[in-house]
Amino acid sequence: MERLPGFRDFYPEPLPHSDVWSANARQHIFERWRETARRYGFSEYDGPPLESLELFTTKSGEEIVGQLYNFSDKGDRAVALRPEMTPTLARMIAAHERNYKKPIKWFAIPQLFRYERQQKGRLREHFQFNADIIGETSPAADAELIALLIDSLRSLGLTESDFVIRLSSRNAWQQFYADNRGDPAKARDFYQTIDKLEREKPEVTRDKLRTLGVSIDDVGAFIQQAKPTPELQEILDNLAARGLTAFAKLDYQVIRGLAYYTGVVFEAFDRKGEFRAIAGGGRYDNLVKLISEGRVDLPALGFGMGDVVLLELLKARKLLPKFDVTVDVYVLIEEESQRSSALQLVQQLRDAGFVVEYNLTPGKSDKQFKRALELGARFTAKAEGGNIRIKNLSTREERVLTSAEFISLARV
Amino acid sequence: MERLPGFRDFYPEPLPHSDVWSANARQHIFERWRETARRYGFSEYDGPPLESLELFTTKSGEEIVGQLYNFSDKGDRAVALRPEMTPTLARMIAAHERNYKKPIKWFAIPQLFRYERQQKGRLREHFQFNADIIGETSPAADAELIALLIDSLRSLGLTESDFVIRLSSRNAWQQFYADNRGDPAKARDFYQTIDKLEREKPEVTRDKLRTLGVSIDDVGAFIQQAKPTPELQEILDNLAARGLTAFAKLDYQVIRGLAYYTGVVFEAFDRKGEFRAIAGGGRYDNLVKLISEGRVDLPALGFGMGDVVLLELLKARKLLPKFDVTVDVYVLIEEESQRSSALQLVQQLRDAGFVVEYNLTPGKSDKQFKRALELGARFTAKAEGGNIRIKNLSTREERVLTSAEFISLARV
Repeated sequence: MERLPGFRDFYPEPLPHSDVWSANARQHIFERWRETARRYGFSEYDGPPLESLELFTTKSGEEIVGQLYNFSDKGDRAVALRPEMTPTLARMIAAHERNYKKPIKWFAIPQLFRYERQQKGRLREHFQFNADIIGETSPAADAELIALLIDSLRSLGLTESDFVIRLSSRNAWQQFYADNRGDPAKARDFYQTIDKLEREKPEVTRDKLRTLGVSIDDVGAFIQQAKPTPELQEILDNLAARGLTAFAKLDYQVIRGLAYYTGVVFEAFDRKGEFRAIAGGGRYDNLVKLISEGRVDLPALGFGMGDVVLLELLKARKLLPKFDVTVDVYVLIEEESQRSSALQLVQQLRDAGFVVEYNLTPGKSDKQFKRALELGARFTAKAEGGNIRIKNLSTREERVLTSAEFISLARV
Repeated sequence: MERLPGFRDFYPEPLPHSDVWSANARQHIFERWRETARRYGFSEYDGPPLESLELFTTKSGEEIVGQLYNFSDKGDRAVALRPEMTPTLARMIAAHERNYKKPIKWFAIPQLFRYERQQKGRLREHFQFNADIIGETSPAADAELIALLIDSLRSLGLTESDFVIRLSSRNAWQQFYADNRGDPAKARDFYQTIDKLEREKPEVTRDKLRTLGVSIDDVGAFIQQAKPTPELQEILDNLAARGLTAFAKLDYQVIRGLAYYTGVVFEAFDRKGEFRAIAGGGRYDNLVKLISEGRVDLPALGFGMGDVVLLELLKARKLLPKFDVTVDVYVLIEEESQRSSALQLVQQLRDAGFVVEYNLTPGKSDKQFKRALELGARFTAKAEGGNIRIKNLSTREERVLTSAEFISLARV
């Protein structure tokens, strides 16, 4: 029996030469995300992987249904596997925001889903690091969030020569569009045309802009000139104070596809331009109000960073650690009469926090020793009377110690 | 908009007085599970939350569909949100077992789903710690797995007065049934009757057993006498060698409902009998062969421990730590002209690994100080020239230090 197309199996190392993913690499990335978010004072939350379909159509319109992993449950509810975390966050915030001091700084690492037909080989799920700040209008919050994004990538070993945050603002484009007397009813078409600028043929963009009454040359000049709005200037100054200037640049080509962004938007890219966006985010000051049907009105901003592009980049830059099994002690059992005292030793050492392996069943001692080496064990140990005979597998030094002596020694 | 019935939202502390769950308690339990599994030399794996329906019906028969969260996807595939992890594990093992040395020791922490109608208030998802050993027939593997289960619970602060593992064996009951000349075709009915023994009225059990040609008194005597099979004796001796005797007892009332168990089975219960089973597992030596359609034949055993009953028990025994926000340093900004040097300090301290908070926007210094206390900060810090003025919030001691001095000091 096969797994469903577009889903991933995560195996431990050594990975088979096949279409599988590393569970250790996934855990490595999750731990760095979690640790960095905590350093920034963000608290973890999570919601259900399944939500009512309405939660997503309210936010993004009916046209999103074509990309959703949606279905009817046995109670005839229209439901969907979550395609993004922000609607769930907005729902959770709307329900209990009064319980939390503002600004609320939260993060989550949800698995997200989509279902598009005709996309051979494309994944239908991925994991995403989501961080959001709710209840703060100041660009100081945008800067704090962007600094978190930068440091999450730095925590994985990436540097300013590996990635850059491209900063932009919907407000800047709104002003440009108004200055060019664009039809407000068609503002969304305009944003989407800008969003596709880098991927679309220039002639197509030119024609689309012309129907919106905007000249492609004016758009080009606006991007070229790159004059920061006051909010963007404040963010750039804030990042400079942190010493993070090299990680961010103004770039009005970024505008973000989603309809609900209201202010500053940004995307993280690899410097060489080999990969799709690593992360993206921005302000969505109206979304909590929309999801709560007007009951709660809180400004908000956030970003999402997926595991798939990130993993490609880390592999390309050789920044994934070697995920060997790391056994501290391999307990040898030379004679079966020793099994009972060996098991006692196994338990003692595990109780003391060591990773301990041993042969479950009788085996030749050279085979046991070979297995200890394969597992990269630091020590082999043999129960010997009330003591332990220890061999350090890197120095080959042997000593006989009490278990208490060994425990305090090996911990150092 | 509401979340779907039977699903949970996980919030950070302080929890609202409402129907929500603690994201920190969840993470606490996951970390203890993961850490204990690693000490035992188990490697992490994961599979998709969605699998083909056939994977589950092959293992458990068509009657399981009534309890599954199943549906048709947009490609008209019959699929289901996983109700348990074992079929996914068997599928993954069958695909790549040749890549791994035996015995394979793996664990996972999947979210599992079920959908039963007419179950008001009942959860439709939970998380489960799964640990399995594949490729070893010896009861030494059963003992290793049961020891892991015991130590997972001990790692959360539970002791032998809080829980016990009730050990049994399908083999013992098979022998009993054969000795009583039971009809082999009805063996499954017999097992299910034994499984319901503790929850069913004695008259009902008596009648059911009578139709199977078995006397309830003989069943009672068999349970009472509790003579261990050779495999169970070996497991009890093995646990005794580890010093874990107080955590396990023989109890033939346990037989496990699922059809696919083949040998030793066990369940973990709280000693006071207040809660449902905390965990359960056993041998399933034929499942990998079944799932792989005969291609791979490996003995296997495993257990599952859910987060819901465990959390109830930990709460009842007051074993959940207090999940305060733990801020190391709160950086004070008394004058806005200091914001730039304050941000530099924030970045320095976060780079050094500290959890750092500060006021995103201008605020009165007494309010900042109050916030530092609320967040349980160990220190407040103020940038002062090139130095930092540090206040230890427990001793109230103040010192002026370089940031390097403070970093090495506060790390201790």
